[in-house]
Amino acid sequence: MKELVLPAINKFGSGCISLLGEMAKEKKLKKALIITDENLNKLGVLNGVYTSLENHNIAYVVYDNVHPNPTITNVNEATALYHDYACDFIVGVGGGSPNDCSKAVGILASNGGDIKDYEGFNQSNHPAPLTFLVNTTAGTASEISRAYLISDPDKQEKLIFKDINALPYCSFNDADMMINLPASITASTGMDALTHAIESYVSVGAYRLTKELSLSAIKLVFENLVEACENGKNVEARDNMIYAQTLAGIAFANAGLGLVHSMAHALGGVYNLPHGLCNAILLPEVMVYNNKKVEAEYAEITDYLYPGLMMTTSEKAVYLIEKVNELSIRVKTKTPLNELGVSIDGLDILADKALEDGNLPRNPIQPTKKEILEIYERVY
Amino acid sequence: MKELVLPAINKFGSGCISLLGEMAKEKKLKKALIITDENLNKLGVLNGVYTSLENHNIAYVVYDNVHPNPTITNVNEATALYHDYACDFIVGVGGGSPNDCSKAVGILASNGGDIKDYEGFNQSNHPAPLTFLVNTTAGTASEISRAYLISDPDKQEKLIFKDINALPYCSFNDADMMINLPASITASTGMDALTHAIESYVSVGAYRLTKELSLSAIKLVFENLVEACENGKNVEARDNMIYAQTLAGIAFANAGLGLVHSMAHALGGVYNLPHGLCNAILLPEVMVYNNKKVEAEYAEITDYLYPGLMMTTSEKAVYLIEKVNELSIRVKTKTPLNELGVSIDGLDILADKALEDGNLPRNPIQPTKKEILEIYERVY
Ligand SMILES: NC(=O)c1ccc[n+]([C@@H]2O[C@H](COP(=O)([O-])OP(=O)(O)OC[C@H]3O[C@@H](n4cnc5c(N)ncnc54)[C@H](O)[C@@H]3O)[C@@H](O)[C@H]2O)c1
Ligand SMILES: NC(=O)c1ccc[n+]([C@@H]2O[C@H](COP(=O)([O-])OP(=O)(O)OC[C@H]3O[C@@H](n4cnc5c(N)ncnc54)[C@H](O)[C@@H]3O)[C@@H](O)[C@H]2O)c1
Ligand SMILES: [Fe+2]
Ligand SMILES: [Fe+2]
Repeated sequence: MKELVLPAINKFGSGCISLLGEMAKEKKLKKALIITDENLNKLGVLNGVYTSLENHNIAYVVYDNVHPNPTITNVNEATALYHDYACDFIVGVGGGSPNDCSKAVGILASNGGDIKDYEGFNQSNHPAPLTFLVNTTAGTASEISRAYLISDPDKQEKLIFKDINALPYCSFNDADMMINLPASITASTGMDALTHAIESYVSVGAYRLTKELSLSAIKLVFENLVEACENGKNVEARDNMIYAQTLAGIAFANAGLGLVHSMAHALGGVYNLPHGLCNAILLPEVMVYNNKKVEAEYAEITDYLYPGLMMTTSEKAVYLIEKVNELSIRVKTKTPLNELGVSIDGLDILADKALEDGNLPRNPIQPTKKEILEIYERVY
Repeated sequence: MKELVLPAINKFGSGCISLLGEMAKEKKLKKALIITDENLNKLGVLNGVYTSLENHNIAYVVYDNVHPNPTITNVNEATALYHDYACDFIVGVGGGSPNDCSKAVGILASNGGDIKDYEGFNQSNHPAPLTFLVNTTAGTASEISRAYLISDPDKQEKLIFKDINALPYCSFNDADMMINLPASITASTGMDALTHAIESYVSVGAYRLTKELSLSAIKLVFENLVEACENGKNVEARDNMIYAQTLAGIAFANAGLGLVHSMAHALGGVYNLPHGLCNAILLPEVMVYNNKKVEAEYAEITDYLYPGLMMTTSEKAVYLIEKVNELSIRVKTKTPLNELGVSIDGLDILADKALEDGNLPRNPIQPTKKEILEIYERVY
């Protein structure tokens, strides 16, 4: 049995954030807890959020201390604010970090206890307060999923949650809020979206509907990511990356991911590195590894992107991997791990953590620890 | 500004209907009003629905008098049952007719008054009771949209409603429930899905994301409809038609439709003909008409379906229209209107009604009455 789960309402287009206040008013909401990060708040990215709420006389309190790779402390601090100020709904604003944090806060606000109690699949009992998630990167698609990741700094691990009670009510993707997203983050979050699309296409949980979404997402990334990085003010390219990450998000939220994300979560948990960058670094090498099983699927993607190539199936699969690698070079995400502060001795621990990651069961091949280690070494 | 609106939860796959009872239980629901048609009930298509509710001790009352092209009387009768039996949620089971009726009942149950009060866009004040819609045809995608059509027999018209308060909570598409759908209904509802996909692709409300969904839907219909008609027990073909109608449904629910649906609604309203059949008959001729404006878009569809054709843009557009026509002949939906009891003198009234239909503004060209009349004459 398959499913397609996403927020009932998803808004796109320049200026769509202006609808937030009206929608909250219609739902008779009174006070928002806004969850974001300091950088975004300082840059003024939230101005449209504040204005829209103020225009409809809706009060709000701001928690802007979410870290990239949000922590249990972030979740607890924001939940305390939610209760202290008697908020009745949540507005997350940011990339995957504030939005993942918002989902965790929603679950704690309605269910109490410790966020660790809810690790895994559908562990809570009550739906989160109504949650609006505003996306400011085009990558994780956290704003449309019920999944979230919270870092446990004690264990140097990312805890994975997937909970229908955490599903947002409405998502916003307003390109105007992404105009000043730096090229480096545009690139890494865009490569995250590409990873979602490619991993979900070959995931053991893929089905024909999600595969169609993955293919469209892959095409949109190849057509738009370079332009979005090099000319961030190009709203059409931004919009197309938004659609790409949304389609990839719907696909992976329902079909699952694989080894790239398992290895990236290990890296992110231990070294606090940007999630999309980790994916970008690992994606081509994991594709080489998975290729022995899913060569035909990779070739299908090539056929879709470049119809009519006179190549064998294996040549087409290799061609796709080359194209992914070229794109990563072009948008400057290809970086050896040793330049990112990763210690060579630490790779062994990373491999252990990757093996335990919740995304691994959906990878088309179940790797040994040795194989994972070899992949880390190849991108070191 | 664009949006993507659909139920938060959508279930697919053989046997998925067995999840209904558990989901209702989780939401603490006690008594369902089941809305369906007599034919389905007699055929036993609802057995899985009943069993799933019974397994979770959830009571239900059945209204099984919905007509194809549901009427205001259907809506009133079912709403009375909802109140009389103190139901607390709605389960629609059927094609577009029971599911459209269910949405109307939900709006009346929560808002009171007369269904005509809510004609148009977002006219109600309160969300419908929690609604689960179970689809048994692969065509309208009514189970995933907030739109519904109710026939007003006095005015011989279909009233159009689009209301966020009517959005279902969860949709089900269980191929096992479609195994005995007759070839003729498989064909006409499948052609409805194709019409949704093609009309939404060239609609003035289309945007890149919906266009991707439309393309995938068109491909799936061309690949699977003949097989689903000729071998109804082929679950893979049924599933692929389900995905096709779902993707087309998401696309058109958010991008809009056009002249085919305007003309089909007029036909359906006056002559009570199957909705999908009307679309199938009109689609190729409306494409010929729209072609002067959207030739390039039709050619894009051809490129997507048949990559690498050595043809000019206009040849590709014509090729697509031919393929649609051939498919309609193949699945036996191509029928002259005069064989369906439509009177030649009545065409004039139909043209008037089509001109007033709510789907027309999204057609790429705004036709004159004379042009509409000519299209009716060509398919007469
Ligand atoms: N929920 C999921 O399914 C899912 C999937 C993938 C990743 N994630 C999680 O998402 C997080 C990563 O999210 P991310 O990659 O979107 O980055 P992020 O949220 O960590 O943000 C990265 C940086 O970009 C800045 N930024 C964001 N938007 C900006 C804008 N519009 N203009 C200027 N600066 C902007 C932020 O201030 C921050 O400094 C990780 O914690 C990862 O685990 C979750
Ligand atoms: N809400 C929307 O956006 C939307 C879009 C298009 C059409 N519609 C509406 O949908 C209606 C048409 O719906 P439809 O085409 O799905 O047909 P339908 O619901 O009218 O059903 C047609 C016939 O098929 C039978 N049937 C249905 N499922 C069956 C099954 N699994 N096995 C055997 N028999 C089965 C029914 O009993 C009925 O006799 C029209 O009223 C139209 O206006 C709504
Ligand atoms: Fe990711
Ligand atoms: Fe239709």
